[in-house]
Amino acid sequence: MQTSLQTSPLYSSLLGDAEIAAELGCDAEHRSMIAVEIALALAQSELGTIPANVGPELQSELANFTVDQGAMAAGILSSGVPVPALVVEMRKSVSRELGQWVHWGATSQDIVDSAAMLQTARCLDILERRLASLIGTLEAMAHQYSDVVMSGRTRSQMATPTTLGLRIAGWAQPLIELERDLTRIKEQVLRLQFGGAVGANSAVAPHGPQISHLMAAHLGLSDGLPWHTNRLGIHTLAGWLLSISVALSKIAKDLMISARSEIAELHAGTAGGSSTMPQKANPVQAEVIAAMGVLAASMHAGLIASGSPTEERDGASWTVEWIFLPQLILTVGCALRHSLAIAETLEPDQARMLDNMARNPGIMAEAASFALAQHMPRAEAQALVKQAVLSGRPLAATLTELCEAPIDWAQVLDPQAVFAPCRQIIEQTFNGRKPR
Amino acid sequence: MQTSLQTSPLYSSLLGDAEIAAELGCDAEHRSMIAVEIALALAQSELGTIPANVGPELQSELANFTVDQGAMAAGILSSGVPVPALVVEMRKSVSRELGQWVHWGATSQDIVDSAAMLQTARCLDILERRLASLIGTLEAMAHQYSDVVMSGRTRSQMATPTTLGLRIAGWAQPLIELERDLTRIKEQVLRLQFGGAVGANSAVAPHGPQISHLMAAHLGLSDGLPWHTNRLGIHTLAGWLLSISVALSKIAKDLMISARSEIAELHAGTAGGSSTMPQKANPVQAEVIAAMGVLAASMHAGLIASGSPTEERDGASWTVEWIFLPQLILTVGCALRHSLAIAETLEPDQARMLDNMARNPGIMAEAASFALAQHMPRAEAQALVKQAVLSGRPLAATLTELCEAPIDWAQVLDPQAVFAPCRQIIEQTFNGRKPR
Amino acid sequence: MQTSLQTSPLYSSLLGDAEIAAELGCDAEHRSMIAVEIALALAQSELGTIPANVGPELQSELANFTVDQGAMAAGILSSGVPVPALVVEMRKSVSRELGQWVHWGATSQDIVDSAAMLQTARCLDILERRLASLIGTLEAMAHQYSDVVMSGRTRSQMATPTTLGLRIAGWAQPLIELERDLTRIKEQVLRLQFGGAVGANSAVAPHGPQISHLMAAHLGLSDGLPWHTNRLGIHTLAGWLLSISVALSKIAKDLMISARSEIAELHAGTAGGSSTMPQKANPVQAEVIAAMGVLAASMHAGLIASGSPTEERDGASWTVEWIFLPQLILTVGCALRHSLAIAETLEPDQARMLDNMARNPGIMAEAASFALAQHMPRAEAQALVKQAVLSGRPLAATLTELCEAPIDWAQVLDPQAVFAPCRQIIEQTFNGRKPR
Amino acid sequence: MQTSLQTSPLYSSLLGDAEIAAELGCDAEHRSMIAVEIALALAQSELGTIPANVGPELQSELANFTVDQGAMAAGILSSGVPVPALVVEMRKSVSRELGQWVHWGATSQDIVDSAAMLQTARCLDILERRLASLIGTLEAMAHQYSDVVMSGRTRSQMATPTTLGLRIAGWAQPLIELERDLTRIKEQVLRLQFGGAVGANSAVAPHGPQISHLMAAHLGLSDGLPWHTNRLGIHTLAGWLLSISVALSKIAKDLMISARSEIAELHAGTAGGSSTMPQKANPVQAEVIAAMGVLAASMHAGLIASGSPTEERDGASWTVEWIFLPQLILTVGCALRHSLAIAETLEPDQARMLDNMARNPGIMAEAASFALAQHMPRAEAQALVKQAVLSGRPLAATLTELCEAPIDWAQVLDPQAVFAPCRQIIEQTFNGRKPR
Repeated sequence: MQTSLQTSPLYSSLLGDAEIAAELGCDAEHRSMIAVEIALALAQSELGTIPANVGPELQSELANFTVDQGAMAAGILSSGVPVPALVVEMRKSVSRELGQWVHWGATSQDIVDSAAMLQTARCLDILERRLASLIGTLEAMAHQYSDVVMSGRTRSQMATPTTLGLRIAGWAQPLIELERDLTRIKEQVLRLQFGGAVGANSAVAPHGPQISHLMAAHLGLSDGLPWHTNRLGIHTLAGWLLSISVALSKIAKDLMISARSEIAELHAGTAGGSSTMPQKANPVQAEVIAAMGVLAASMHAGLIASGSPTEERDGASWTVEWIFLPQLILTVGCALRHSLAIAETLEPDQARMLDNMARNPGIMAEAASFALAQHMPRAEAQALVKQAVLSGRPLAATLTELCEAPIDWAQVLDPQAVFAPCRQIIEQTFNGRKPR
Repeated sequence: MQTSLQTSPLYSSLLGDAEIAAELGCDAEHRSMIAVEIALALAQSELGTIPANVGPELQSELANFTVDQGAMAAGILSSGVPVPALVVEMRKSVSRELGQWVHWGATSQDIVDSAAMLQTARCLDILERRLASLIGTLEAMAHQYSDVVMSGRTRSQMATPTTLGLRIAGWAQPLIELERDLTRIKEQVLRLQFGGAVGANSAVAPHGPQISHLMAAHLGLSDGLPWHTNRLGIHTLAGWLLSISVALSKIAKDLMISARSEIAELHAGTAGGSSTMPQKANPVQAEVIAAMGVLAASMHAGLIASGSPTEERDGASWTVEWIFLPQLILTVGCALRHSLAIAETLEPDQARMLDNMARNPGIMAEAASFALAQHMPRAEAQALVKQAVLSGRPLAATLTELCEAPIDWAQVLDPQAVFAPCRQIIEQTFNGRKPR
Repeated sequence: MQTSLQTSPLYSSLLGDAEIAAELGCDAEHRSMIAVEIALALAQSELGTIPANVGPELQSELANFTVDQGAMAAGILSSGVPVPALVVEMRKSVSRELGQWVHWGATSQDIVDSAAMLQTARCLDILERRLASLIGTLEAMAHQYSDVVMSGRTRSQMATPTTLGLRIAGWAQPLIELERDLTRIKEQVLRLQFGGAVGANSAVAPHGPQISHLMAAHLGLSDGLPWHTNRLGIHTLAGWLLSISVALSKIAKDLMISARSEIAELHAGTAGGSSTMPQKANPVQAEVIAAMGVLAASMHAGLIASGSPTEERDGASWTVEWIFLPQLILTVGCALRHSLAIAETLEPDQARMLDNMARNPGIMAEAASFALAQHMPRAEAQALVKQAVLSGRPLAATLTELCEAPIDWAQVLDPQAVFAPCRQIIEQTFNGRKPR
Repeated sequence: MQTSLQTSPLYSSLLGDAEIAAELGCDAEHRSMIAVEIALALAQSELGTIPANVGPELQSELANFTVDQGAMAAGILSSGVPVPALVVEMRKSVSRELGQWVHWGATSQDIVDSAAMLQTARCLDILERRLASLIGTLEAMAHQYSDVVMSGRTRSQMATPTTLGLRIAGWAQPLIELERDLTRIKEQVLRLQFGGAVGANSAVAPHGPQISHLMAAHLGLSDGLPWHTNRLGIHTLAGWLLSISVALSKIAKDLMISARSEIAELHAGTAGGSSTMPQKANPVQAEVIAAMGVLAASMHAGLIASGSPTEERDGASWTVEWIFLPQLILTVGCALRHSLAIAETLEPDQARMLDNMARNPGIMAEAASFALAQHMPRAEAQALVKQAVLSGRPLAATLTELCEAPIDWAQVLDPQAVFAPCRQIIEQTFNGRKPR
């Protein structure tokens, strides 16, 4: 049992994500906060509200600035925020004249929120790439397996035939919608924060909007109103991450079922072996994705629970965001990483699929009763089919015996009839994907 | 203690919502399910895949159809779904010939989900109207109170001045974004469900897409792919509702603080009196909004926890949706209703605002130090201001004594300096609102 | 889609619980609140702090008192609490002299909380009876099926043999612990609330403790300190209910797996049929139990989220309790009811269990390697067994061929070897159950 | 923004806990797992089911064993569990003869769960010590401030007088109950896990119970049944931790209110200053406690959501526990640490308390109306008092004018009348604490 398993050197390759963790580490945080402070100075120098040299000189003098960690830790402990100590450290490392313009007119939350958005932007790039790869892989597989018939299961019972291709397209469906949403979400979420002490930018009035505009441009963020207590952007992002996680959890759960010893229709991912039980192939990666799904939901709930900050700025709710937002990003990134690995290694066992269907001939009952109902009242048709299925004998022969309707039973009972409608839906699913 | 307090005749005027409850009652559910069954028949008759008379005749014969509740209850208990019993009842009430075409090619979930979307559409209309009213009221008040100065509070401490108008604009900010999102969300969420037994529409192949298209048109829903296990639309709706609730909770929490006996700057809503404590004015409606916020978050979490249905259709996760989705709509509707009442009755006590500020002269310290820092190093400026504030004496006079900088202290220390920047932000906030 | 599905006439037999709902209805609430008011008057009359006749006369005059629902609804809407209106109505229905002593020294929360505990006591009796029945049924079945061998599954893979009896004993294990806890929990939770306006009982000082003592005795509740803002009792109850729900969800999930078409080792409960898919037997009751598990977790989370009421009494957090606590009781009651039905109808398919094991001979690999390891290094033993298993040929014969160790393979590979250790654990499990 | 803020060198002194983190680090985990493996060998050697020398020799040879982190990380990635790699590493570091007996008859979960309980035991010792200190400090303060009168607040309104001592005793009330519960909880939770592959201990039959008994004794854990899928113990622990957190959050929230600029009755903890707003004293530690409360609730919900593991062992739900259980312990430990600091530095401003009461004379209205109601009908009494309060004039004088009842108004309206009943409750609160 270890705290921070997701960043532990031992567990993080399973439960964390090195690429994302690099964007959400101590250095990345500091670099981002410093970038925001520099952008603030640049904007004000450009506007002429502080001396013209301050911005550029700060930028150049702070190019190699590294933070004293002890001073930062002490500052965070006493004020509950990293910014005051960071500002002191920045001032120490530049001339006194420059130093006094550092952080001019800003409040700590301006720096913390804007820096978080810079880091989020980089993480979203990673997630977006992975998401595109995953959808691409699923698309290829949906087509590759569009004529692989298997039993559909509803309410955990074998129902009527479907194809593996359709199942996979179904996995992709929400992911495609979420990929499409990302452009809008980035714009809505990746927004500069600049409001000053109480969100009115009164210390720099009337230049607030112009400073904000220039800062946003320097940082590559959207400009907009201060959002100290309007966390809708953060929640929109969190909701998007949660929806990714929900979609991946479905894939994982389906795989854990399909890879069960008794079903064994699909295998994917690294299969954790057991030294004493050689028959076992534990679905390690699917389990991790499902676990990440539970984590993501809990973190999301925590963000929401502290999502209505009071008055002009709120200390308690903010702290929860600091902890859960990066963890949520990491958690979903980890799930995406494993999902991609699973998609890339997915292998169907078609013989087993056919075998499982053969052991449950009732899955053609619906097709039979629809065919019969063209020739007799539906209730009679259903009764007849039920009788045939429960007899336990071959369905086509039994139905031929039981009724005289001129039905080509071989064709009606051919599960491959499902290929065409499934292909239709597969096509439609991926047509919906915007060209990138 | 009562179950279902939100629909109890005693509590629902406080904790429920009559207008929304009417759209989410037994009758509304049945009417909606019947409408979907009729649309299915109409679509197939129009396409010629079932006899041309079936659709129109079903529509006319079922015009006054009412369901036998006993039969429905028994059917729901045995199958866990309302549709099989409903179909039996519908067939009983029409001719045998018509009856056999009822529900042709559909699965229960097609009917339940599509009906739920019809009911959701009507509820969203109600919510949209209320949201527009609320934003409109906040807009009027933000302008009305744009020059009412009050202390901003950050981290529960008096900070620097702001205006009541800006506070109110801040409340409106997320609501305006959410109102803007609604058009997109309706389109994404209010979608026909039609997939047949396992989502492939194989029983009606190759006519699935055409039937779906015609049904959607009859019902006024969007057309699209079957979404039996893709609950992203439901989650998007739930996320939107949750965000409304989060935004309203912030208003309620702010009000509960501002209406405290010791602060008493704002009053709004019905004030629950106490027979023995005449001085009390309990913020009943704000409390209810805050409580609804907790309910909404819990219901949302429940929807997500069951949001990754397995395989082709999933019985357990579906049941959670049936319970929590309508409750979530009702809960947010109730919160919106009370929020509107609060907005319409909001009354500031400006004397009290000024008095509270006067008792805490430090709120002008930031302005003072920014002014001084134009004439001396910032650290010295801050030290000087701190000394002046802690002296407990009038700030302007003390600062004049302490330093010779040619500063018009009366102007610098006038909290009304915040009017202009606040007005800028108020304008920008409501400019962002799309004309309706 | 309907709000309050759990109390809907159509859905409640599936998703609610008539017996519990009767204890949590409007009448039950009013009777309980009136009982608390009467107990308050009786206690004070007995102590002589109000006239001696008041208590007994109030009790007799209010014997047939019924509340005017319109007046109550109006009162709740205006004050957010049912008690003020109830007190007015009570006063109206008795003489003016008696009336003025009604509610003497109490605050609304004293009445609401104490009444809720009276209702909770009656609900816990129902739950306790069901729990005892369920454990009793599981105990009988665990013994009945103690020699029914089946494959154990770990991480969704067939592992080594176990018995159905052990599986069932495992289901009972947490339930037995929870049954044992109930005595303590009742005492801790079913406590009188009596604290007056701010929890100090100052209006009746110095008689608070004596009044409290007598009231508790009249009502059959524990006596103790006022707990207006100490909701630990409520949370302890909620935690107990949640744990029941978690334990039942495990049973339900196991059943949904075991009843799958491809596994089909266990069947239980009503099996929801499908008119067109006669082979289907949807696990309706297991699905409902699993759904109730998600509901219970959400409601518990809501209770906790509002579980830290501020200052002397808190209006918002209290409202959440009113809504979620009775729903949580109802939800767990519903799950218990279905669990009992499932336990009573559980039927194993032993042929299928053996067949499933036969199709996966690897489940004896662990036993084989432990036997071999007595004769050679363990790593060699495991390698040998792995080779034998992967050969796909009969295990005993293959192992005899592959090595000369004097092992009675028929005995080692007999899955019935698991009977004895499983029986040991089954005995120990139910021995742990205190005699009632 | 950083992942794992709670263990970050920069943030952990604020948001983490060094003492607890040391028990939940990589080394502590490995030492604990190795201790369990050694106890397993010792038990079997003592019973004679493996050679007598194995246990003692393993213990001695592994005394200085340290794990190769690279090998562990690779093993965890491939199998999803740390144990297989650990066993390989342990075998490598001892003689081949000894090595083959390592992990004999155990499954990975036996080792992981038992090791987690060893770590939990050490953490609970830390928490217990802090809890005792906190209660002790609160007890001292409750007595110290038993005669400090302040306004009670209900539903965020000033209500009637209370004492600071009573408020503090109320904070302690749930903590005392939770402290008392700890003995029982330790016994129930700190339990050996030993069940073998599917929980039947068949590989070591019939020695399972004896091995379990001896192992538990070696490790200082309770003995009992295997609990691979019975996580009630974990949930009981999590529930206890959550309740601690809920109780601490109430303290924190009360403090954040009482320390507001406009109320300023209480100050405690480090007060985060602001460089430009010298009047500010941000309640950093109270904010952190409140934030930890939200975290704890989310983590608890995650544990519960994965709390019903399927079949004999479940991979996905287990992973969630690994991540959230230690974080929950750490989070509550952090909250306890800050709560203790707050309790130790709590300072009331009695002048401010009196001033706040003086500004709201209505808080004596209840007392006045109870006194008057001894001389006239209660409704008249209340009307009279209301009139007096709303007049805004001194209450005693006004009431004397308004009525002739022979009441000693100075005494009735003396808020100090609340001292006696408050002292009663304070006494009773801490009498409830078992001697330690």
